Amino acid sequence: MTNTRDAFIYREIYNRLRSGILTGQMKSGERLPSTRTLAARIGVSRNSVLAAMDQLTSEGFLESRAGSGTFVSESLTRLTPTTSRLAGKLSRRGKLIETTAVSRQRLATGFVPFTPGLPDLNRLPMAQFGRILSRQTRLLSPEAFSYGQAGGWQPLREAVALYLRMARGVVCDTDQVLIVSGSQACLDLCARVLFDPGDTIGTEDPGYLGARGAFLSAGLRIAPLQVDEDGLVVSQLRRQRGIRGIYVTPSHQFPLGVTMSLARRLELVQLAERQNLWIIEDDYDSEYRFHGKPLSALQGLDRTGRVIYTGTFSKVLFPGLRIGYIVVPRNAVAAFAQCHALAARHAPILEQAALAEFMKSGGFYRHVRQMRSLYKERQSILVDESRKLKGLIDVSPCEAGMQLVGWLTKSTRDGGKLLSAKAAQIGLDLAPVSDYALKPQDRTGFLLGYSGFGSAEIKRGMGLLERVLKDNR
Amino acid sequence: MTNTRDAFIYREIYNRLRSGILTGQMKSGERLPSTRTLAARIGVSRNSVLAAMDQLTSEGFLESRAGSGTFVSESLTRLTPTTSRLAGKLSRRGKLIETTAVSRQRLATGFVPFTPGLPDLNRLPMAQFGRILSRQTRLLSPEAFSYGQAGGWQPLREAVALYLRMARGVVCDTDQVLIVSGSQACLDLCARVLFDPGDTIGTEDPGYLGARGAFLSAGLRIAPLQVDEDGLVVSQLRRQRGIRGIYVTPSHQFPLGVTMSLARRLELVQLAERQNLWIIEDDYDSEYRFHGKPLSALQGLDRTGRVIYTGTFSKVLFPGLRIGYIVVPRNAVAAFAQCHALAARHAPILEQAALAEFMKSGGFYRHVRQMRSLYKERQSILVDESRKLKGLIDVSPCEAGMQLVGWLTKSTRDGGKLLSAKAAQIGLDLAPVSDYALKPQDRTGFLLGYSGFGSAEIKRGMGLLERVLKDNR
Repeated sequence: MTNTRDAFIYREIYNRLRSGILTGQMKSGERLPSTRTLAARIGVSRNSVLAAMDQLTSEGFLESRAGSGTFVSESLTRLTPTTSRLAGKLSRRGKLIETTAVSRQRLATGFVPFTPGLPDLNRLPMAQFGRILSRQTRLLSPEAFSYGQAGGWQPLREAVALYLRMARGVVCDTDQVLIVSGSQACLDLCARVLFDPGDTIGTEDPGYLGARGAFLSAGLRIAPLQVDEDGLVVSQLRRQRGIRGIYVTPSHQFPLGVTMSLARRLELVQLAERQNLWIIEDDYDSEYRFHGKPLSALQGLDRTGRVIYTGTFSKVLFPGLRIGYIVVPRNAVAAFAQCHALAARHAPILEQAALAEFMKSGGFYRHVRQMRSLYKERQSILVDESRKLKGLIDVSPCEAGMQLVGWLTKSTRDGGKLLSAKAAQIGLDLAPVSDYALKPQDRTGFLLGYSGFGSAEIKRGMGLLERVLKDNR
Repeated sequence: MTNTRDAFIYREIYNRLRSGILTGQMKSGERLPSTRTLAARIGVSRNSVLAAMDQLTSEGFLESRAGSGTFVSESLTRLTPTTSRLAGKLSRRGKLIETTAVSRQRLATGFVPFTPGLPDLNRLPMAQFGRILSRQTRLLSPEAFSYGQAGGWQPLREAVALYLRMARGVVCDTDQVLIVSGSQACLDLCARVLFDPGDTIGTEDPGYLGARGAFLSAGLRIAPLQVDEDGLVVSQLRRQRGIRGIYVTPSHQFPLGVTMSLARRLELVQLAERQNLWIIEDDYDSEYRFHGKPLSALQGLDRTGRVIYTGTFSKVLFPGLRIGYIVVPRNAVAAFAQCHALAARHAPILEQAALAEFMKSGGFYRHVRQMRSLYKERQSILVDESRKLKGLIDVSPCEAGMQLVGWLTKSTRDGGKLLSAKAAQIGLDLAPVSDYALKPQDRTGFLLGYSGFGSAEIKRGMGLLERVLKDNR
């Protein structure tokens, strides 16, 4: 098939004739006009008509009888006319999925401040990555392009395992590392492998919507858990019954930005043993810690194989890459790999191979270092600018991450929804903390993402924010 | 973090100290030896010890008191010693998934004849595809590397919609086409969106294991349905109760290779309306039809929106690409897109953009045409060679596909499993039809994949097959 005009005409004639037969406009056994007549009537070449009739004959819609012409096949059942009244219905699960959010509803359009969690898309090492990708298409053996292992491309698993052991204090062997398409896929796998429909999972509240969405869509119930300045409040779990797992972001809580204290981490790991819980540790942006080394992962404290560690290249490289990883306890490796095979087979080979090379060559680490110092600078610009808004909004600096929370000095009853809508009208993306929360919040806060925006954009954004807040007084 | 020797040493010291604290070898409040003493004792530089102790201090494991040294933090809870007895247990769903197959267990190792369903990996247009990929990294706007639409990269959706309308007679608009990571992901989405746990789906028997696996792992029951020379026997569905959907491969049944007749297709579409069923049409290798144009998709006969059409680039390009597509009825688009967002967000941007380009440039169509004539030739070599095995095995040619079935003239009781094991020992991959079947089969057959192997390999394989069959008489 080529996309020529002839092919279009052929397909159009085919469709018209088929539709005529299926709807009963042309009856079974009816003789078709000659190709010459048909061609003249439609105003196309006789060849196109011939091709369409040949196809319909080979598919059984038409029969050609030697010497007497072409007929609509006898015994063709007629189909109901097109109607959506007879359309199929989604399952209960399908309806639940349709209405489950994976992210907040964004009111502003375009790439405007202060959308949280975006890396600087203008500073991506795409030229370098493109060269590596292209080289992989030449260097990989032909066999590499076939079906691969569910766990991922071995050199990438090795590079990630090394990275996690060295940089994050994760305790793992290569075969515990699975490569999947981003952290959303990690969370989906966790939900399916570790829990049954109807099980309850505790999640930080406010917390990450992608996690909540993955759990809900797999039939789990959510128990919202309080977070304070030391991270998830573990003590509240002693009173909660029937919880089978906990989802946490210990390095840099999303969205509040707090770091879970060591005491809380140890408390959580011990509680998981005692109460037979799974812990899902989402370490989505841990590389962006601006003072000292990033804190080690909670996973490294786990002595009994109850922590599932997930991470992604969406923040350190770019979201469109769709590569993440999951580190699972030894006795769960087979189930996770099989679940991944059943859901997607495996991650794409070329991107995995290129990423492995990028990590091995050191280019990845260089990029992370550059972005870390860039985002550190951007955070301080944001904090400096926020001083001009004193009395309206409090923005405290944070040692880590890609966004800060700005807390209104006077809270609003609607959790900031109206302000966010007003901001959107002047091209400002203000994500209210309440968008991420199940329970009502005491204070009104907005996420101020700085990593994706240059200093001029941040300053412009703070100017717009000032306008919105002053208009609202 | 760089992968230098120092980093390794630092991490090793960190791990040993942390482990000593967590297991109670070092007690809360205990004073650590000086960094000089520790460095001498372990035999490393003092700097590495300092770095590890700094990190442990910033993480809260150690406290440094001015003038008196560094101490293990007070009030650190001690953790249970490492043990797998206390490990977490998978859910019932997780255990089911762990034991659900996505493909047959292959006994032979390596790329040997006659593994079915493999494109010729030595003839892939990788140089061309690599150039396109690399160009995309330069041409795409930075915004393209951010999070994308769950439905896929718009230009690829358009290219696929056009291709399916023109080449496959699929009736669809672009927004009904979703790009996902291969047909396994399509089947997983269908299982989750269209069915509830406990629902029954009818599948061809013998049939595709990836489909059965996706359905089972989503909690569905399987009703095995008979296939004859006209494809799925639709009449048997009138007697079956409680079926909510049907999975079919009408263009070229997997594994038997038959094409579903028009009468059966119409019967199935009408039955779906009457009995309120979903039809999942898997069109995995329809481009490889060697005489005339490929038959149009069953989807084109559907007037009420009950057919979900799935296809993949695994056969026309290569499996490691991990790109497939799904065409869904209008009223199910939102649910499918949301399910995809919750499971994986979206397919990778670079591969989607490159593939869209490859289709637009015509390179894709050229490659398909070349492979079609190559595989046609390979099939006839296989059929010719099989004449030498007359009286042992019957191999009938087929108008389509990437494999043929060879039927033993004398069936074996075990469905060919012993023969397959013997073949594996001499480097031959013989997939018994019974591996794909739930019900016992009357005849013993083996899949003979030819698309992935050159003529010399096919001839060598047929020689080995002759040996296996003669040894077995």
